Amino acid sequence: MTRIAALDALDIRFPTSVHLVGADAMNPDPDYSASYITLATDDPDLAGCSLVFTIGRGNDVQTAAVRALAPLVVGLDAGEVLDDLGAFARSLTDDSHLRWLGPEKGVIHMAIGGIINAAWDMAARRAGLPLWRFIAAMTPEQIVAAIDFHYLADALTEDEALDILRRAEPGKERRIAELLHHGYPAYTTSPGWLGYSDGLLAELTRRAVAEGFRTIKLKVGLDLDDDLRRLAIARAATGKDIAIAVDANQRWDVPQAIEWIRALSHFDLAWVEEPTHPDDVLGHAAIRAAVAPVPVSTGEHTHNRVMFKQLLQARAVDLLHIDAARVGGVNENLAILLLAAKFGVRVFPHAGGVGLCEMVQHLAMADYAAISGVMEDRAIEFVDHLHQHFTDPVHIRGGRYLVPAAPGFSTRMHASSLREYVYPDGPAWRGQRQPPPTQARLKRA
Amino acid sequence: MTRIAALDALDIRFPTSVHLVGADAMNPDPDYSASYITLATDDPDLAGCSLVFTIGRGNDVQTAAVRALAPLVVGLDAGEVLDDLGAFARSLTDDSHLRWLGPEKGVIHMAIGGIINAAWDMAARRAGLPLWRFIAAMTPEQIVAAIDFHYLADALTEDEALDILRRAEPGKERRIAELLHHGYPAYTTSPGWLGYSDGLLAELTRRAVAEGFRTIKLKVGLDLDDDLRRLAIARAATGKDIAIAVDANQRWDVPQAIEWIRALSHFDLAWVEEPTHPDDVLGHAAIRAAVAPVPVSTGEHTHNRVMFKQLLQARAVDLLHIDAARVGGVNENLAILLLAAKFGVRVFPHAGGVGLCEMVQHLAMADYAAISGVMEDRAIEFVDHLHQHFTDPVHIRGGRYLVPAAPGFSTRMHASSLREYVYPDGPAWRGQRQPPPTQARLKRA
Repeated sequence: MTRIAALDALDIRFPTSVHLVGADAMNPDPDYSASYITLATDDPDLAGCSLVFTIGRGNDVQTAAVRALAPLVVGLDAGEVLDDLGAFARSLTDDSHLRWLGPEKGVIHMAIGGIINAAWDMAARRAGLPLWRFIAAMTPEQIVAAIDFHYLADALTEDEALDILRRAEPGKERRIAELLHHGYPAYTTSPGWLGYSDGLLAELTRRAVAEGFRTIKLKVGLDLDDDLRRLAIARAATGKDIAIAVDANQRWDVPQAIEWIRALSHFDLAWVEEPTHPDDVLGHAAIRAAVAPVPVSTGEHTHNRVMFKQLLQARAVDLLHIDAARVGGVNENLAILLLAAKFGVRVFPHAGGVGLCEMVQHLAMADYAAISGVMEDRAIEFVDHLHQHFTDPVHIRGGRYLVPAAPGFSTRMHASSLREYVYPDGPAWRGQRQPPPTQARLKRA
Repeated sequence: MTRIAALDALDIRFPTSVHLVGADAMNPDPDYSASYITLATDDPDLAGCSLVFTIGRGNDVQTAAVRALAPLVVGLDAGEVLDDLGAFARSLTDDSHLRWLGPEKGVIHMAIGGIINAAWDMAARRAGLPLWRFIAAMTPEQIVAAIDFHYLADALTEDEALDILRRAEPGKERRIAELLHHGYPAYTTSPGWLGYSDGLLAELTRRAVAEGFRTIKLKVGLDLDDDLRRLAIARAATGKDIAIAVDANQRWDVPQAIEWIRALSHFDLAWVEEPTHPDDVLGHAAIRAAVAPVPVSTGEHTHNRVMFKQLLQARAVDLLHIDAARVGGVNENLAILLLAAKFGVRVFPHAGGVGLCEMVQHLAMADYAAISGVMEDRAIEFVDHLHQHFTDPVHIRGGRYLVPAAPGFSTRMHASSLREYVYPDGPAWRGQRQPPPTQARLKRA
C-alpha cells in the first residue's frame, strides 16, 4: 500500500503590479500569486501538484488553509484516493467543521479544490495521460461517481448526467483526433488591460489579430468615455470580422450596468463579462433581459455548483466562464460542465493569472471530447503571462490552444521558479514585503 | 493622536462534541470555537474585542486570516477609524487583493467582519454605551454613512434607507424605554438537538415552557420517522399555545425539502429553517411556493448583503436569520436590517454557539429602537451554552433577553477562559489535538 506521505503548500508571488499587467476596473495592481500545492507519496514516482490562484495579499491565508488540511489527507491510502476521487473530494467538502467556514465558498473551498486538483494531477500521471485524456477515458458511470449531486436534484439528476455523457460517447474518438490535430480555439485578453495606453492597445490588438485570434477582450467599467474611445480603437484595429468582448470585473450596480452596456452596445459586443457582483444571480438576469441581445456572462468568481445552477435556472447568462481553481476541483467543474450542457449554455473558460491557462485547457478539451461534444463558438481565454514558470506550459498556435501532451494537469512549476518567487524570502522579493494597500480615506499614524 | 497598536487573534475551542451539545443534521459533533479578536491602542483604556464563531477544525485557518489583516489595521489613527466606521469597513472589504479570496464571503469576509465588529465594540465603549444604544443614538445620516450600498441600488437606495430610518425616529425613546423595562423576546433551541433522547427532549421542552419561552425549535432532517415522533413529543409537552419551529440545517435537496416539509406540516410549524443550501435563493423560493403557508427561512449562513437582497427580491423566505459573525460586521448587518425593513420581512437573529447570543441581541434591539421599529412576532434565538465565559453574559428572564447594560458589544471573554481553552495548549485540551473527522469511505494507511 502506498501512503500519501505529505501535503505541502508554498506562498508564491510574482510582482506583476510593477508593470500594470492585469489591471482592471476592480483590481488596479494585482501581484499574480499562487498557493502551490504538492501531494507526495511513499513512492517517489507518484506525486501530484496544483495551485490556487490569488492576486497578492492574502496568499498567505490561502496557503495556511491548504496546510491546515494536511491532517485530513496525510496517511490516506493513495491508491484508494486515486481510484475514487469522488469519495476523496466528498471527504474534504463534507467535513462538517470545515464546511462551517464556507459552506463551499471562499478560502476553504479553494484550498479543498486545490488539493482535489493535485489528486487528479497524480491520477492522470499514474495513468500516463494528460488530464483531458484521462477524463475522456472515464466511463459515464465513473464521471458521475466523481460528482457530488447534492443540491442539484432540481436541475440535474444522475440519470440526466449519464444520458448527456452517453450521448457524447459516439464520436468521442473523432473529437479527440480533431483536438490532437487542430487544438481548441483561444481568445486573448492581452491587449485590453486598463493600464495600457491607447497606442499599446492598438498595437497589441493588431498583433493579436495577426497571430490568429478571432476574439479579443477589453477591460471596461472605470470611465465610460475611456471605454468608448478604447473600443473604437480596438474595433478599428480588428476590422469587422473579429469578435470583441468586454469585461467589467464586477464594477457596476444593476441599473448602472444596464445604462453602461446600452452605451457600449453599438460596438457589436461578443459578450459583457461580470457586469456586477458575481453572487447576484437575479441581477444578472435583470441586466440580461434589459440589454438583450447583448450577451451577458459571469462565472470566474462563481463559487460552487449551487450558484452555477441558479445562473442557468434563472436564464441569467448567455455564456459561462468556468475557473479551474475557484470551485471544489475537477469534480465540481465536471458537475458545472454537465449543467451547462443540459441548459445549452456555451462555456468560455476563464484563464490568465498564474497557471490558469495550463489547467483550464484540460477541462475545455475534456468537455469537447466527452461531455458537451461542442467546440463551435467557444474559446478558452489566453493571456501571455508567466507560462515560462511551468514545466509543461501551454502552446498557442494560430490563435488556438494545442493539446497538452504530457501526463497530468500541466500544473508543475520549475523548482527554480519556486525558489525565486517564494514569498517573502525568495530573491525576487529580496526580503521586501508587499506594500500595504492604498487607503485613500484613512491616514496612517 | 491615538494609534491602533495591535490586532491579535486567539484560537479558542470548547470540547462540546463530548456531550453532543449542538448536534444537528449537518453538524454531528461540533466543538464550538472562536477566533477571539482584540484591537489594542496606545491608550490602555481604549480597546475593542469580538469573535468569529466556528465549530472546531478550521478555527486555526480563521484565526490566521484575522492575523493576516493586521498590517492593514495596525498604525491607523484610532480616532479616525471610530469616527468613520463606514470608511474603515470599506478599507478592508474593498482591498482588491483580499477581495479575490471572496469576494465578500467565507473565511476572509468573516475575518474582516470580526475586525470591524471589534472596532464597533471599541467605539461603543469609548461612548460609554452598550452597542445597541450606541447605534440607536446615531442619526439616520450616520447610519447610512456606515453602510456600503454598492450592489444594492436595485433593491435599496440611500434615500430609501434614510426614509426608513427617519420614519423610526418618532417613538425611538419610547421603544428604548420598552426594551429597558421588558427586554426582547427570545426563543430557545436548547431542547431540540438531535443527540438528545426522547425523554430529555420532553423534559427540556417542558422546562423551556415553564421558563416563559413562547417558541421552541427542534433540529430535523436526518430521519423522517424520528422527526415526526420528536415533533409529537414536543407538541405534547408544549400544548397548543407555544410555537414550534424546525431547522434542517441545509440537509435537503429542493424536491426532498418539499416532500419532507409537507410531511411535517400538520404540526403547525412556526417556520422551517435552512431547508437546503444557503446559496440556493431560487431553491428557497421554489420550496416556499410549494409548501405555503408553512413559513420558510434561512440566513445564518447567508454570506453578504447581495445574497440577502436576492432572498428578499425573490420572495424566497417568510423570515430571515441574521448572524452577527458571518457577514462584514455591524455595517453589513445594518444594510441587511434595512433591506428586511423595506421588504417587510421579520428577522429572527441566529444565536447559540460561542458569543453569538451576546452579540446579536444588540443588533435586534437596535433594529427595534431605530430601524424597523417592530418587535411583535419576532424573537432572538437563545441557547444556554458557554455564557459563563463572557464578562457581560446575556441575561434571560421569563423567556426574554434583558437589555445589555455594559458599554460595548458584550464580546469580552474572561482572561481565565481564554487561558483555559486556547487551542491546542490550554489546560482544557491538555496538549491533545482534536481528532480528525471520521472518513467512512476512506481508510487511513
